[in-house]
Amino acid sequence: MEAFKNTSSPKVMTIADLGCSSGPNTLVAVSDAIDAVESVCKELNQKSLPEIHIMLNDLPSNDFNGLIGSFEDFKRSHPCFISVAPGSFYGRLFPTQTIHFCPLFHMPPLAFSGSSGAPKTGLNKGNVSISKTSPPFVLEAYTKQFERDFSQFLKCRAEELIHDGCMVFTLVARKDEDPSVEGIYLHWELLAQALMDMASQGIVETEKIDSFNLPFYAPTSKEVKNAIKREGSFAIKSIRMFDVGWGEARDHACEHCKVEENATTAQITVKSMRAGSESLFVSHFGAEIMDELFERYSSLMEGYFSMYPDGGLTNICAFVQKIK
Amino acid sequence: MEAFKNTSSPKVMTIADLGCSSGPNTLVAVSDAIDAVESVCKELNQKSLPEIHIMLNDLPSNDFNGLIGSFEDFKRSHPCFISVAPGSFYGRLFPTQTIHFCPLFHMPPLAFSGSSGAPKTGLNKGNVSISKTSPPFVLEAYTKQFERDFSQFLKCRAEELIHDGCMVFTLVARKDEDPSVEGIYLHWELLAQALMDMASQGIVETEKIDSFNLPFYAPTSKEVKNAIKREGSFAIKSIRMFDVGWGEARDHACEHCKVEENATTAQITVKSMRAGSESLFVSHFGAEIMDELFERYSSLMEGYFSMYPDGGLTNICAFVQKIK
Repeated sequence: MEAFKNTSSPKVMTIADLGCSSGPNTLVAVSDAIDAVESVCKELNQKSLPEIHIMLNDLPSNDFNGLIGSFEDFKRSHPCFISVAPGSFYGRLFPTQTIHFCPLFHMPPLAFSGSSGAPKTGLNKGNVSISKTSPPFVLEAYTKQFERDFSQFLKCRAEELIHDGCMVFTLVARKDEDPSVEGIYLHWELLAQALMDMASQGIVETEKIDSFNLPFYAPTSKEVKNAIKREGSFAIKSIRMFDVGWGEARDHACEHCKVEENATTAQITVKSMRAGSESLFVSHFGAEIMDELFERYSSLMEGYFSMYPDGGLTNICAFVQKIK
Repeated sequence: MEAFKNTSSPKVMTIADLGCSSGPNTLVAVSDAIDAVESVCKELNQKSLPEIHIMLNDLPSNDFNGLIGSFEDFKRSHPCFISVAPGSFYGRLFPTQTIHFCPLFHMPPLAFSGSSGAPKTGLNKGNVSISKTSPPFVLEAYTKQFERDFSQFLKCRAEELIHDGCMVFTLVARKDEDPSVEGIYLHWELLAQALMDMASQGIVETEKIDSFNLPFYAPTSKEVKNAIKREGSFAIKSIRMFDVGWGEARDHACEHCKVEENATTAQITVKSMRAGSESLFVSHFGAEIMDELFERYSSLMEGYFSMYPDGGLTNICAFVQKIK
């Protein structure tokens, strides 16, 4: 809402939905954005609504054909123009100063850009991310990469947004400075354990595990704030942290994959994680072990959620406005 | 070239490529447009090139995934932003006054919008388009529909183009007032003959043929000029008619379908036509007769081209500029 009030009433309002995915929820999010523009216009007693141009972005590998097939129906109930702008949001996606509002509704755990993402391989033995057995420089390497990539993300959006343009993004975060004690890092630790169990039975080579690090990072609220301040293009209008409960996890999983009606939290979490990261594991470990890996992982996650029923994820939602 | 000189030097130049298709030639056309902008900027001694935003349009049924997969490579050699805007160009595709230049490189024989396109069924017996045995009102109905649809096309583009914005389009046309004597209409007459031959052998019902009319129209140069003047949004900067030779026919066919190295003109023409219109025939006559229909059509076309080696198509290329 606030995002629209802050931009001077334009004739055309361009909204760039980053990481739109291709599930049924993609256009629900767009619909929310359109409704918000309409209600603000009413509130401000504006006679005519701006034309709304939705630019949907995701990686070129996204299934855009499926998404495009649903545009005509959607436009009948929501008058707007919809285009698709494929590409990585760590690079420029739109011409300079052409975007009014940029929501990133479901940012996955921050994926590092390019192959340089994860720390040097072979030095984080038995882990696939930061864990309590990781040497200190692993956290340091991940943090540095986060700062570099997140800053690049902000810089690109600042170039694309109009003066006063706004951005809202939600990302998987952590509450504690020490990443090894909670949430997403414990999930990844269990994934490493599933792999190590398979290694102990000769199904996977230990060296393969040692040389693999997930290109994901879950920052603290302080890290996000500092990164935004350091980059300098945006003022933070609000930032809040919240736990993602069962319902949200299900909604998110439903976007990426079919989830059975009576699925457990563990099953939903694993399905969602598999949909989002399987290609990374396949290219490193081979497709043939995927079913077994994720079955073992699912069992470990069942145990985890029986001990920590609230052991879901933490998210940060930030609303920022361009200041220069 | 002229199109770029006529628009005041903007920071961002948005080029809407209508009917982009998904073949290898799609980005060749875009590349030509980018080169043209660059050479004009050099000619005008402009210090900095504008950012170029390419909006690729085609019907939602187009294979956009395939096209999108080639963007990254293309952008490496041609710095630009590329988006995809699916939809019918008989309706609005882009927000008001946001497009600088609108090329329509390969307009197919003008396809009527919606199902109301072709004349009332059952009154054009033994034909699938205008032919010498068609009653006069058939030409009249086709002409009216062309005027309505083409005017709608121009109106939408006029709303989308900036002041002074330009459009170039090429469409299949006819030289003679009487459509039954040349080019594309003779091609369609032979298609009707292939269907009637099948009807005489009981493979197709005659009523099915009588109730089918192709939603295509090939206007004369005069009709195009009059339609542009009547609609009123554009000034004609140039308009010319030209015959499409063997090379162009091959190029065009290559965009839509694989063509063998030693294919005859007839084979290429039929393949291209089949790719562009088969879905219309399938929904009316059923998929099962398609192979036989187009084989018979191909034989008739071989005969046609042996009699008229230059019996290709006529095109109109018009360059227009928005005047209000």
